[in-house]
Amino acid sequence: MLFQIIFVIALAAESMTAALAAGRRNMDWFGVCVLGCVTALGGGTTRDVLLGHYPLIWVEQPAYLLVTTAAALFTIVVARVMEWLKLTFLLLDAVGLVVFTISGCMVAMEMGQPALIVIVAGMITGCVGGVLRDVLCNDVPLLFAGELYATVSAITACLYFFGIQAGFPAELVTIVAMAIGFGLRALAIAFKIEMPRFVYAPVRDQSSKR
Amino acid sequence: MLFQIIFVIALAAESMTAALAAGRRNMDWFGVCVLGCVTALGGGTTRDVLLGHYPLIWVEQPAYLLVTTAAALFTIVVARVMEWLKLTFLLLDAVGLVVFTISGCMVAMEMGQPALIVIVAGMITGCVGGVLRDVLCNDVPLLFAGELYATVSAITACLYFFGIQAGFPAELVTIVAMAIGFGLRALAIAFKIEMPRFVYAPVRDQSSKR
Amino acid sequence: MLFQIIFVIALAAESMTAALAAGRRNMDWFGVCVLGCVTALGGGTTRDVLLGHYPLIWVEQPAYLLVTTAAALFTIVVARVMEWLKLTFLLLDAVGLVVFTISGCMVAMEMGQPALIVIVAGMITGCVGGVLRDVLCNDVPLLFAGELYATVSAITACLYFFGIQAGFPAELVTIVAMAIGFGLRALAIAFKIEMPRFVYAPVRDQSSKR
Repeated sequence: MLFQIIFVIALAAESMTAALAAGRRNMDWFGVCVLGCVTALGGGTTRDVLLGHYPLIWVEQPAYLLVTTAAALFTIVVARVMEWLKLTFLLLDAVGLVVFTISGCMVAMEMGQPALIVIVAGMITGCVGGVLRDVLCNDVPLLFAGELYATVSAITACLYFFGIQAGFPAELVTIVAMAIGFGLRALAIAFKIEMPRFVYAPVRDQSSKR
Repeated sequence: MLFQIIFVIALAAESMTAALAAGRRNMDWFGVCVLGCVTALGGGTTRDVLLGHYPLIWVEQPAYLLVTTAAALFTIVVARVMEWLKLTFLLLDAVGLVVFTISGCMVAMEMGQPALIVIVAGMITGCVGGVLRDVLCNDVPLLFAGELYATVSAITACLYFFGIQAGFPAELVTIVAMAIGFGLRALAIAFKIEMPRFVYAPVRDQSSKR
Repeated sequence: MLFQIIFVIALAAESMTAALAAGRRNMDWFGVCVLGCVTALGGGTTRDVLLGHYPLIWVEQPAYLLVTTAAALFTIVVARVMEWLKLTFLLLDAVGLVVFTISGCMVAMEMGQPALIVIVAGMITGCVGGVLRDVLCNDVPLLFAGELYATVSAITACLYFFGIQAGFPAELVTIVAMAIGFGLRALAIAFKIEMPRFVYAPVRDQSSKR
């Protein structure tokens, strides 16, 4: 199925982007592989652990681990070339976001979860990998920094869930949800659309420890 | 049951305190919601994942997610007002600590866990949410910084477990454990009682990499 | 069984090394215990959660928690003496690495996992505790910083898995894998053998946000 192929390409792309982040921090080759695998597979893993959905995808099909490891190692070789493909990788990251989100919704729906959990499962699958990458790189997660990223995931998940619930054919719903999600993300990148931020500076600063 | 009502109020309060922490770091609205939900529900989630106790509470009853999300968003509106209620929120946080601790003990006891695991389950439920908040905010967890917080959780868990084991009625034990735990935490806040710290500075500093 | 005794000694040693790290950050006594327990037991816990292998070892045998907590607290008393035993603890850490790795392989093989998952399970068991310690201490994981540590774990896991698969007696395979793994790690410490690093500095720095 086409969805499966796009899924694997997105896994590799996420792993490569994370490998670059590892390179920027001068990690060793092992760290590069770990960061690639955790970023690419961490969202689905977190979803499965939270839903109690065993075995995990990469435990059942270890080939996924090989794909993400190989992609991370390959990045060490082609890092210089990737700079010229910055936009390509930004768009592949957007593809990954919508594909992972939909795959997360699928898992939750197969388990018979209610609407809210399906959407949350989709968002976890789409977004948590990047959060784990940032925590391991000792950064505040980029996900919380205003970019229209999680919102795209939420919209994609809603489109998919309610489309399926409304009885439309699964292939059509998948394609439409992916197209709209991808389009939104591309617009957000192109026009630098941002979420509003909550800026809170305590007036009496000295008394606020927590 | 009254315990359930206090539980939900404490969830909302924890989420609101975390939302303020997000605002201090200028996170976007989505980040505010995630930090609120993770802080409020992260302790119970960690306990359930470690004990293999599925489904998670917020997967079974997604209404909890709505409460914590709404509380976090509400914080954006009322942040200025909350400054005048600092003490109220510090006390609500103390209520959350003892209520979450006891709820964690209940779950572990229902599973028939031994004493030590019941107490650890209570402490995980009471304390881990704040640790996750600090990790996501890229801070060293406040929990390890001397405040009498985890100790209060441990004492509350012991009181509850041994009270129930001794055959006292559950309602009485719950009320007494909550009252003593809350009182201890209030005293710790009022008199700034702190845990002793382990201050270790290597003599031959240059040779200590790890 | 001898393996079991070495396992418990290694648990205590890992907890003590982590307690020193806590002392360097002036954590309180509770933080010292938590960091000790998480570092010593975190690798096995992560493996079991990812493989869905319940109950966790320390939930089934809470005595492990007592060992790691006691070791962490004991460190507060003997920290000054431990400086003279730096090499001993570095070697005990190497013992822990190979023992934990092999114990992780054993669990995965009992579950009938394929080769790659057995090796990954061994590496997770051997290495993740230190990663959790570094995340809680708000550091970039030392594991990704070039030291020949995870590689030793991978080699030990391969030796064990393929040795057992080849039909050699389990005791022999365990001893040989431990000896070679420990020897490699000792050589890496003695000669400061390092993994190559992936150093990536974007040419057009201003355009690289991610």
